Amino acid sequence: MIITLLTDFGTKDYYVSAMKGVIKSINPAADIVDITHEVRPFSILEGAFILWQAVSWFPDGSVHVGVVDPGVGTGRNPIVIRAGRSFLVGPDNGLLFPAAKKLSDKLEVFKIVEGKYTLHRSGTFDGRDIFAPVAAHISRGVPVEEIGVRIDNFIKIDLFDWRKAGRTVYGKILHIDRFGNIVTNIPNLNINNMIMRIKNVEIPVKTMSSYAEAEDEVFLVEGSSGLLEISSKMRSAAEITGLEVGDPIELIIP
Amino acid sequence: MIITLLTDFGTKDYYVSAMKGVIKSINPAADIVDITHEVRPFSILEGAFILWQAVSWFPDGSVHVGVVDPGVGTGRNPIVIRAGRSFLVGPDNGLLFPAAKKLSDKLEVFKIVEGKYTLHRSGTFDGRDIFAPVAAHISRGVPVEEIGVRIDNFIKIDLFDWRKAGRTVYGKILHIDRFGNIVTNIPNLNINNMIMRIKNVEIPVKTMSSYAEAEDEVFLVEGSSGLLEISSKMRSAAEITGLEVGDPIELIIP
Amino acid sequence: MIITLLTDFGTKDYYVSAMKGVIKSINPAADIVDITHEVRPFSILEGAFILWQAVSWFPDGSVHVGVVDPGVGTGRNPIVIRAGRSFLVGPDNGLLFPAAKKLSDKLEVFKIVEGKYTLHRSGTFDGRDIFAPVAAHISRGVPVEEIGVRIDNFIKIDLFDWRKAGRTVYGKILHIDRFGNIVTNIPNLNINNMIMRIKNVEIPVKTMSSYAEAEDEVFLVEGSSGLLEISSKMRSAAEITGLEVGDPIELIIP
Repeated sequence: MIITLLTDFGTKDYYVSAMKGVIKSINPAADIVDITHEVRPFSILEGAFILWQAVSWFPDGSVHVGVVDPGVGTGRNPIVIRAGRSFLVGPDNGLLFPAAKKLSDKLEVFKIVEGKYTLHRSGTFDGRDIFAPVAAHISRGVPVEEIGVRIDNFIKIDLFDWRKAGRTVYGKILHIDRFGNIVTNIPNLNINNMIMRIKNVEIPVKTMSSYAEAEDEVFLVEGSSGLLEISSKMRSAAEITGLEVGDPIELIIP
Repeated sequence: MIITLLTDFGTKDYYVSAMKGVIKSINPAADIVDITHEVRPFSILEGAFILWQAVSWFPDGSVHVGVVDPGVGTGRNPIVIRAGRSFLVGPDNGLLFPAAKKLSDKLEVFKIVEGKYTLHRSGTFDGRDIFAPVAAHISRGVPVEEIGVRIDNFIKIDLFDWRKAGRTVYGKILHIDRFGNIVTNIPNLNINNMIMRIKNVEIPVKTMSSYAEAEDEVFLVEGSSGLLEISSKMRSAAEITGLEVGDPIELIIP
Repeated sequence: MIITLLTDFGTKDYYVSAMKGVIKSINPAADIVDITHEVRPFSILEGAFILWQAVSWFPDGSVHVGVVDPGVGTGRNPIVIRAGRSFLVGPDNGLLFPAAKKLSDKLEVFKIVEGKYTLHRSGTFDGRDIFAPVAAHISRGVPVEEIGVRIDNFIKIDLFDWRKAGRTVYGKILHIDRFGNIVTNIPNLNINNMIMRIKNVEIPVKTMSSYAEAEDEVFLVEGSSGLLEISSKMRSAAEITGLEVGDPIELIIP
């Protein structure tokens, strides 16, 4: 049974390994796969986006643990979401919601109850003390109903709140990848030539079907998740444009 | 059977993968878990601390390989430590000692003898040539007595050499984590208000029970390993204070 | 069955995890081992070198996936190389060739045909859509003849194009590792004292048998892959010399 991990813990400290040790102590057969541990510290938005991108490539029945958790040690709920046959485990701060919604339209959310399926809670490391053991027990087949209680109120965030008004599409930057590709929250509009307005500058852009085809300095491409990306051939579009996560972008349809 | 790996090799080179390939060639069923490969190059102290933090979260019977090894190619001994039902494999330079001591009060140390349980020794990469194959053979059940000979002299280091004199507690900085939390070698003193003296500056600090509760610029918190950490809410305490690994710290009890 | 992964994708995005999810969806028993994901973006040369270093440490029968692929989305072929009992999967741009040649003198190359062993092709992410599923099917025992068609023309690169003229050996820098060791493409010449000419400066250098023995600022050492490295004890030779990947180096034999 696969357990995936996404955190903002980095890989230089012992944090991720402690979570893995806890999981293996409970379920030696768990097959742990890292999504990433390099979410920008405390960036729930970025973590939610990467988790949303990743989860649909894993088999049904996987348990996805997400820990980007600026509220650790406060009253925010630790939760499990059942989404179809898969599970998501982490803090109730919106991080898990877009990924869960992608896996299933019908979600059931459980507030984790501290007890026999959790470790002693240090207050600073719920990833190890709460989320890792709960994920391990779920992967062993413990019913989530034994681990928590159903709740109806939980935090939802919407990554894809783009809109169109007249000939202009309003969106924002969700992520900048290692290559400097700038991922927007706008799906492919299937329009070849548009004007991109960023930072009060208007730039004509073509929509290409692969990175390698491009000739212009920057161009649009449908990225591997179906969203429009601002890219540059063999260069960092993020460096060229200076755009950052959260910045607005407008696309004007001719 | 779990084999954990902690090194200062980074992950951009082929070094870690060569160790994993060697392990899998000897024991295909070995379950390899990375602790970290980002120990600062040659920092035995930092490596020893992270290994100390991590090992107790893994199941009894795990084999922990640690390679921070400025003396590779010299006469320093390659060793295996048996600590209860678990094993630690690496150079005899103190790296393994605090973790071993945490796992068991009674340690047996074996000097690895080159031979049928090691590869041809290149002289520059004992991680691949000595430690990985030895760990793999131990994980297959080869008795450590066949792999090495008992020795009584080996290098011990003490991470926790803090002391109290009058109203002042003298400690040092062991580690700075990804979030800029500064981990001291002083256990939680359970005192809410103290004066912290760092770099000849005195700062009143409160001891909080979680990161999120805090209101002051810097504060103390009992970290997830039971040690006092200097932290800052949503900011890097390391940047605020300028403290580095090895720096002294004093806490004055009112 | 082991599947190794080498890419220039980094580990902050979802890319590597999507490849792993695809592999696990097809072959849950696949044992995935990362070589590295930190090849410099688009550096086929560096990727080819690291893959060449790593593959021989894995068991025969492993499937090695390499993705450094500036031509993704163009007409370059996706290929599988059969090298003895092992397989290499990736783009036909030279990346896989040196490693394949190291594993076997007799190579068979197959152009992957899109179909039941590949996913829908997004055009920007063949690692996920083509190479991961093909590797997973091979690891399940699907004959490569079912996955592709034999081709005779494919791209070869030669990492080890050093030469000797008179008393001078001409080589180049292949890689700089985490410690600042500078890996050349020149094998150990077994000559203790030479003159190294770099950037028009001549420096006498000794050849040491381990890093720790050295006394001079920079020295040569036979690295763990059998190639001469320029090293410095406890310091970065790359910083001292300013050398970069691709730079020429000359060694003058006295």
